[in-house]
Amino acid sequence: MSGNTFGTLFTVTTFGESHGPAIGCVIDGCPPGLLLSEADIQPELDRRKPGTSRHVTQRMESDTVEILSGVYEGRTTGTPIALLIRNEDQRSKDYGNITETFRPGHADYTYFQKYGIRDPRGGGRSSARLTAPVVGAAAIAKKWLFEQYGTVFRGCMSQLGDIVIPFESWDHVAHNPFFAANTTMLPTLEAYMDALRKAGDSCGARIEVVAENVPVGLGEPIYDKLDAEIAYALMGINAVKGIEIGAGFKSVAQKGTEHGDELTPQGFRSNNAGGVLGGISTGQAITASIAIKPTSSIRTPRDSIDKAGQPIKVETFGRHDPCVGIRATPIAEAMLALVLMDHALRHRAQCGDVRVSLPAIPAVIDRAATTD
Amino acid sequence: MSGNTFGTLFTVTTFGESHGPAIGCVIDGCPPGLLLSEADIQPELDRRKPGTSRHVTQRMESDTVEILSGVYEGRTTGTPIALLIRNEDQRSKDYGNITETFRPGHADYTYFQKYGIRDPRGGGRSSARLTAPVVGAAAIAKKWLFEQYGTVFRGCMSQLGDIVIPFESWDHVAHNPFFAANTTMLPTLEAYMDALRKAGDSCGARIEVVAENVPVGLGEPIYDKLDAEIAYALMGINAVKGIEIGAGFKSVAQKGTEHGDELTPQGFRSNNAGGVLGGISTGQAITASIAIKPTSSIRTPRDSIDKAGQPIKVETFGRHDPCVGIRATPIAEAMLALVLMDHALRHRAQCGDVRVSLPAIPAVIDRAATTD
Amino acid sequence: MSGNTFGTLFTVTTFGESHGPAIGCVIDGCPPGLLLSEADIQPELDRRKPGTSRHVTQRMESDTVEILSGVYEGRTTGTPIALLIRNEDQRSKDYGNITETFRPGHADYTYFQKYGIRDPRGGGRSSARLTAPVVGAAAIAKKWLFEQYGTVFRGCMSQLGDIVIPFESWDHVAHNPFFAANTTMLPTLEAYMDALRKAGDSCGARIEVVAENVPVGLGEPIYDKLDAEIAYALMGINAVKGIEIGAGFKSVAQKGTEHGDELTPQGFRSNNAGGVLGGISTGQAITASIAIKPTSSIRTPRDSIDKAGQPIKVETFGRHDPCVGIRATPIAEAMLALVLMDHALRHRAQCGDVRVSLPAIPAVIDRAATTD
Amino acid sequence: MSGNTFGTLFTVTTFGESHGPAIGCVIDGCPPGLLLSEADIQPELDRRKPGTSRHVTQRMESDTVEILSGVYEGRTTGTPIALLIRNEDQRSKDYGNITETFRPGHADYTYFQKYGIRDPRGGGRSSARLTAPVVGAAAIAKKWLFEQYGTVFRGCMSQLGDIVIPFESWDHVAHNPFFAANTTMLPTLEAYMDALRKAGDSCGARIEVVAENVPVGLGEPIYDKLDAEIAYALMGINAVKGIEIGAGFKSVAQKGTEHGDELTPQGFRSNNAGGVLGGISTGQAITASIAIKPTSSIRTPRDSIDKAGQPIKVETFGRHDPCVGIRATPIAEAMLALVLMDHALRHRAQCGDVRVSLPAIPAVIDRAATTD
Repeated sequence: MSGNTFGTLFTVTTFGESHGPAIGCVIDGCPPGLLLSEADIQPELDRRKPGTSRHVTQRMESDTVEILSGVYEGRTTGTPIALLIRNEDQRSKDYGNITETFRPGHADYTYFQKYGIRDPRGGGRSSARLTAPVVGAAAIAKKWLFEQYGTVFRGCMSQLGDIVIPFESWDHVAHNPFFAANTTMLPTLEAYMDALRKAGDSCGARIEVVAENVPVGLGEPIYDKLDAEIAYALMGINAVKGIEIGAGFKSVAQKGTEHGDELTPQGFRSNNAGGVLGGISTGQAITASIAIKPTSSIRTPRDSIDKAGQPIKVETFGRHDPCVGIRATPIAEAMLALVLMDHALRHRAQCGDVRVSLPAIPAVIDRAATTD
Repeated sequence: MSGNTFGTLFTVTTFGESHGPAIGCVIDGCPPGLLLSEADIQPELDRRKPGTSRHVTQRMESDTVEILSGVYEGRTTGTPIALLIRNEDQRSKDYGNITETFRPGHADYTYFQKYGIRDPRGGGRSSARLTAPVVGAAAIAKKWLFEQYGTVFRGCMSQLGDIVIPFESWDHVAHNPFFAANTTMLPTLEAYMDALRKAGDSCGARIEVVAENVPVGLGEPIYDKLDAEIAYALMGINAVKGIEIGAGFKSVAQKGTEHGDELTPQGFRSNNAGGVLGGISTGQAITASIAIKPTSSIRTPRDSIDKAGQPIKVETFGRHDPCVGIRATPIAEAMLALVLMDHALRHRAQCGDVRVSLPAIPAVIDRAATTD
Repeated sequence: MSGNTFGTLFTVTTFGESHGPAIGCVIDGCPPGLLLSEADIQPELDRRKPGTSRHVTQRMESDTVEILSGVYEGRTTGTPIALLIRNEDQRSKDYGNITETFRPGHADYTYFQKYGIRDPRGGGRSSARLTAPVVGAAAIAKKWLFEQYGTVFRGCMSQLGDIVIPFESWDHVAHNPFFAANTTMLPTLEAYMDALRKAGDSCGARIEVVAENVPVGLGEPIYDKLDAEIAYALMGINAVKGIEIGAGFKSVAQKGTEHGDELTPQGFRSNNAGGVLGGISTGQAITASIAIKPTSSIRTPRDSIDKAGQPIKVETFGRHDPCVGIRATPIAEAMLALVLMDHALRHRAQCGDVRVSLPAIPAVIDRAATTD
Repeated sequence: MSGNTFGTLFTVTTFGESHGPAIGCVIDGCPPGLLLSEADIQPELDRRKPGTSRHVTQRMESDTVEILSGVYEGRTTGTPIALLIRNEDQRSKDYGNITETFRPGHADYTYFQKYGIRDPRGGGRSSARLTAPVVGAAAIAKKWLFEQYGTVFRGCMSQLGDIVIPFESWDHVAHNPFFAANTTMLPTLEAYMDALRKAGDSCGARIEVVAENVPVGLGEPIYDKLDAEIAYALMGINAVKGIEIGAGFKSVAQKGTEHGDELTPQGFRSNNAGGVLGGISTGQAITASIAIKPTSSIRTPRDSIDKAGQPIKVETFGRHDPCVGIRATPIAEAMLALVLMDHALRHRAQCGDVRVSLPAIPAVIDRAATTD
């Protein structure tokens, strides 16, 4: 499998660069018979798209998606579904000064060393813009998983720079540009971002993502553990530097008597596992958390080198997100959905006729237990 | 690709259960002509094997490896290399009481729900014993990478339960049962483990792993980013709940002016990136850190259910590691080595004739910058 | 790997249906730095496109290709190359009568039974139109292979129905609608096709394809033998029912003393192997031959059933190729090129640093030996 | 996917060389709960093993199989099943003269050029001995397919050298060393082989293989068509040079009115398709035919070169099959079974909940129609 295809059975193959004519993807392995149109996909793309608040890049892209194949009379046919999104607001001239130098912390340098050539316009293929097709593909996965199992995906920002954002309610997430599950902190977040922009600097963020109503039994124990594939999927998002499943790094200081989630006929007592044991879903909520680094394209001058290897000061102008974490929540949900979709199909392949007498233990959805 | 094969070009397919007749693996894609014998592999297996101190399981396994194929007159031939390790110390009677119940925090429950059947002897396939073949396979990868690029792998335990273990020197790692890069803390660690065993409890750990002398340019940008594949590989190790690359979760609170590693002709100024930018190696050291949860098999009674779904108290006797993290260091090194080996071959496939005029920037190996 | 992606390292993922808005593909793994524009691809598409003589379907498609990604300033960047071809001449009304019945010998029936739904317009995804993106992708492979090794691909029709077409010269192939390497038979072929059309019937064909200047050493011995992958690639072309490599079925009646191609310092004495021994290329020409069945969409009424399982007479009107073999030559070349490209990269990955003292034996390109 | 793993979901990864310590394989993706022991596998291995008549190699191997994993209390657990077969009758001294020269028509030359090193003992990995693990793996697939669908696999030799062997009855196949579905020809075949051996020569063969009771709907249309994967699987068998599905090369001279199998509520009228339309199974018998070339290891002297590139006469002594086709029937059945098993799981993954109102049309198993 080459690097640009995600998944084993439900696969997504993307293409495109930030300032090329178009971006998109081919989704293969979708079960037939699913009702599907652009109206199922566009809302997810709209959640991710740029230009929706002053805290993100001001590039104007409608991210209008066109389904090119795989749907007949409103239903999926089982053949590949191609999604096409034309780029509308390329401004290649903004990037003239970037072509000869390498931004500290940016893929500029590694692409050039690997390929001997790079498309410098807007970061080329390394741009976070390339997450749009993935979000589109995941809209299909989300729909199918919801219809099959009632699976629901949610996410929120839980930290912006050094500001921790306490969880109040999922209801808040859709109503602020930060995807914060919180209203009281919003003025603080806005002020923080305004100061950051003024300073010509950038910051990191922490995002949480949760999938509820996941069937028990998804995952392949060695090596395609469900959590291993989630880690792969989330670490593959631009700027991610850390992943936690369930209790994550808190597990280090836990005792076994504390960490192991007790089982009762009424449900699990806690969810330190984050919904995965031995690489297989428990039926509890899948919970994950990611660390997103600060954007490398900043106005503040920094030391670097040019293509001739000479020292140079680099300042980056043009349109950039001062915190890519702000738009990362729908992307993290999308990657999680793709993993679950793929494993739902893989599980059905091998274990489609397994009948277990023991009913699945109810999930205990308890945010206190799962994410704090 | 089915779940039990790791890698794209340098692949490892494992088999076996904790108490079956044997465990092993098939390694495919190894370049021909490499000098190889069991003597290259056994030392790595010995680092991981059980029974070497009172702080780990007392199961006695020599983990003697036999090469069944792929080597002729002392050199690899390019055909699959099969490794076989016979299990020597199975005691299935120890596990009689486990067969009807599910340990909290253990894969018992998920395996049973997924497959409708499970091998309860020693955890069956979910046992950490299954990391032995991987460590064996990685010994080959390590040898090849060292010969090609001088790549060196190192790892250590940096936290045991709530005890942080300051880094003193790599030289200490081989001389204590904890893989601690430290001597002064050893009495504290010993006392902690002795108390834990007496209490019938278990604890977590944090492991760090580093690869030095990694060539620039390894990794496939979307989705098989080098860091995404490292995250997948490390999260696939038994009991791992969190992964960090480079600055990891500290990135969240960093500013762009702090995080982005400046480039100079003399080398990078820091390594917050952990050796990966945009999914591609920078030529700096690859640094990663993992969180390992406490073992679920403990003597302390805990609430659970039996196969009929009835509530029951579960206590686990038999031989278990009270902290699986103690033997995890060579495993983490192994998984990292397999990822780098696979990507070294993948890179050569696509970019084998790329010639770049800019020399690679020297790595700055600076533990202060990389891991603290 | 899901069904719609071809290849391991140089991969082609196609999408589209005969009468949907567009067809296309994503090509991944292309080495960077290759000069590439639409002008390199369009000529291959033009060889395959419909409507170029009275002996093929009269559907009018320009098959104009657009490169959406993966090329910057005229060179490949190593990122995925997406090709888009808009469908221009859909006439869905022609196919109204097909939607409720199944044509004998057509994928109508199997698609419906597999997916429970099918796109009946022009055969949907089962249409030979879907070979266009593959031909486009292979144009890139051909260019790279020619630049690296001087590899050249040629093909011709060697039998039309029961008319054997003797080989005269490759020079003739481009100058007749049948891709015949022959001029003297052309009136016979034209008359045969005219009579066939008048009769409302269809016929089969045999196509030969050859790759010259293939380096020695390509192929993975078990199971991805070069000839196994060629068989897979060619059998995947619409309507193919048989494959031969080298002497093919003639090998059955050969003795070992006759079949085994003798080696001399000046070259091989024959090419019964068709350029592959033990699954690995010998450096001689790769030669293959395929059997193409007669088209199933014919005007002559035939017995079948409808979607309710009731007996019915089926006659197919609309635009169809009376012999899909007529346009199959560039498709067969394309599939062969994709296999060789993929294996060239795979070989470089594993054996990129192998140095052999024995020079490759010269190929003996001798049509008498290879194809008769 | 690396070269030594077969399949997408039901995968077989083999290892071993002809004269190494052992051969074997790892089978991954087997559904759990299947009753399985060595007694299910050994009979298939016994059909293929050497030394059972004077017409095959006199090497004495019991081919005793040991299951190393994946089975608990007599049932598959869903984890990888490893099979081990120790080599018992290696005689490396027989092959001393082979190490410095290349046999015409043998993989000697291509392995050496590819890898720069080869294991010359008994052909190393290129030996037909490596089909034993595959036959073992396929025994599991056959058992599962029979239990699920009643699928039955049969095969026979239909031509030996230039002697066509008319089909009389499947009942005869098990009662002669040639796997001939015929008794009257046996004296002719025996005499032919005796003369061949005396002459120090070898010959080819044609093998037919059939799978009955295959469910409708298996196969992925582009590119993993069922027939494409069968072609790949069969062409991957040692010495195969040609493949036919259904009418095969006879399709070339057929008209559409003759070739297309008419459908009636009572069943198909013929099976020119060989059970596959558009890459998907029709529910009729899958029928395939393969051409096997004459063995390259013969006593008759032939021209070749040595490792220094100098001309030399090569004669091969030691133990060799004068017609590898004689033992090829169970191997061809095995490869077909592996393809169907893999696609049965793949189909269930994507289309596991498809419900079609139209019942599958009965298969018409009619040898006259299918294979002549």
